[in-house]
Amino acid sequence: MVLGVFNNSSTPAQLRAACRSAAFSGHTSGLAERHVQGNVTILPQALAADFLLYCQRNPKPCPLLARGEPGQPGLPALGVDIDMRSDLPRYRVWRDGILVAEPTDIADLWQDDFVSFVLGCSFSFEQALMDEGIRLRHVEHGRNVAMYRTNLATAGAGPFEGPLVVSMRPLSAADAIRAVQITSRYPAVHGAPVHLGDPAQIGIADLAHPDYGDAVDVLPGEVPVFWACGVTPQAALVQAAPPLAITHAPGCMLVTDLLNHQLAAF
Amino acid sequence: MVLGVFNNSSTPAQLRAACRSAAFSGHTSGLAERHVQGNVTILPQALAADFLLYCQRNPKPCPLLARGEPGQPGLPALGVDIDMRSDLPRYRVWRDGILVAEPTDIADLWQDDFVSFVLGCSFSFEQALMDEGIRLRHVEHGRNVAMYRTNLATAGAGPFEGPLVVSMRPLSAADAIRAVQITSRYPAVHGAPVHLGDPAQIGIADLAHPDYGDAVDVLPGEVPVFWACGVTPQAALVQAAPPLAITHAPGCMLVTDLLNHQLAAF
Repeated sequence: MVLGVFNNSSTPAQLRAACRSAAFSGHTSGLAERHVQGNVTILPQALAADFLLYCQRNPKPCPLLARGEPGQPGLPALGVDIDMRSDLPRYRVWRDGILVAEPTDIADLWQDDFVSFVLGCSFSFEQALMDEGIRLRHVEHGRNVAMYRTNLATAGAGPFEGPLVVSMRPLSAADAIRAVQITSRYPAVHGAPVHLGDPAQIGIADLAHPDYGDAVDVLPGEVPVFWACGVTPQAALVQAAPPLAITHAPGCMLVTDLLNHQLAAF
Repeated sequence: MVLGVFNNSSTPAQLRAACRSAAFSGHTSGLAERHVQGNVTILPQALAADFLLYCQRNPKPCPLLARGEPGQPGLPALGVDIDMRSDLPRYRVWRDGILVAEPTDIADLWQDDFVSFVLGCSFSFEQALMDEGIRLRHVEHGRNVAMYRTNLATAGAGPFEGPLVVSMRPLSAADAIRAVQITSRYPAVHGAPVHLGDPAQIGIADLAHPDYGDAVDVLPGEVPVFWACGVTPQAALVQAAPPLAITHAPGCMLVTDLLNHQLAAF
């Protein structure tokens, strides 16, 4: 990690170039401020139609920003110079649903039939919340957000199915209301919360033990607020267990040229 | 009450004409469907500037739709034929902050310095909620909404001050989120909720004992959701105790020519 060089005023192209040269392989949270970052899934074309349908049927956890052309590593809708083989800080390689490697480059794995999917990510709406003065404890504590598998099923498509995964942020009641308003403006990055209040209603037994990420305190008077999470499609991918699939490594997102505010619906 | 004649397809002008002739003196809930109904306050001009400022400082409980000219009983912004002396089904007359009469007409009390204020009313946002499929228990049970004095102070102006009064509707978490979205579109009729969840946080000791209106059950799994309420300025008026003031009687609103959807902010 060379965070001294790459910071919140780096341009997306600078960050991607640093990823490409392997000069940077760290988390992208807070970098290239105000730019949209994306969850990445790369699949062989035989699975791409079903994955696209899975995204279409589950737009809150899987808000699709862009789909690449088969075999094409470029994704010009999100940045003219993007090369999906090298422009993420770190990847995860999955074989038969098992994590087998975390390389910084996938040029050697790239196939003529690979199709890239980039989904919106909560970093965009978290920026919007913080811009409105809403404090996010996990950000202030430098932790990953707490995520939980729920008992809500996603709508399946082909081999892709599984539970809705949610992220949770504890907020005061007034901030929870404001957060519904603010995140409703951003359907392309998960949009409004899917639940608030009692975690048991969506099958979460214990907030202190998240399935992914780090636990965060819920203080007296705070309401836990739950958003659909981009880990949902990763869980569906593990369940589908295709022979080969590639995703971003946690927190190592694709930094795009889009600005967060360009995604605002109103 | 002649509800057989006046129903949800009556026009606002028909309803006002029936009020004017004293043929109708009942509650206006559900009548003249889709039209904006308003809370009414009529004050001598000496108090009108402070009341206007009170509304400006407290837009959530006091969303001002129109203010009349001193001494003028018309309010053309809300309906060309409106006569504030006769067009409400029933009025309340307050002397020194004490309720002294509930007439169906105030022509004999009208003064050359009277100024009328019409504030947005929750009937408009309730219609919007029901149009989106959100069920409101107090409506289904034919009761008045439950209202509570909170420990939140309004911003005072001259003699007008007092607690924020809120109305409460119990909703599922998913409906509560949707209700924030829907009512945010209607800032002119109280807008988004001011609180949800724990009533004690805003000084409400017992939901089963509302200060105004009728209690409503909060079922397991439901979240109480609280909106700023048009009773707030009436409470401020009682506290200010002017020599003479006139309001609508509870539930007996001014039916205007505006359509609810005309108030939608986006």
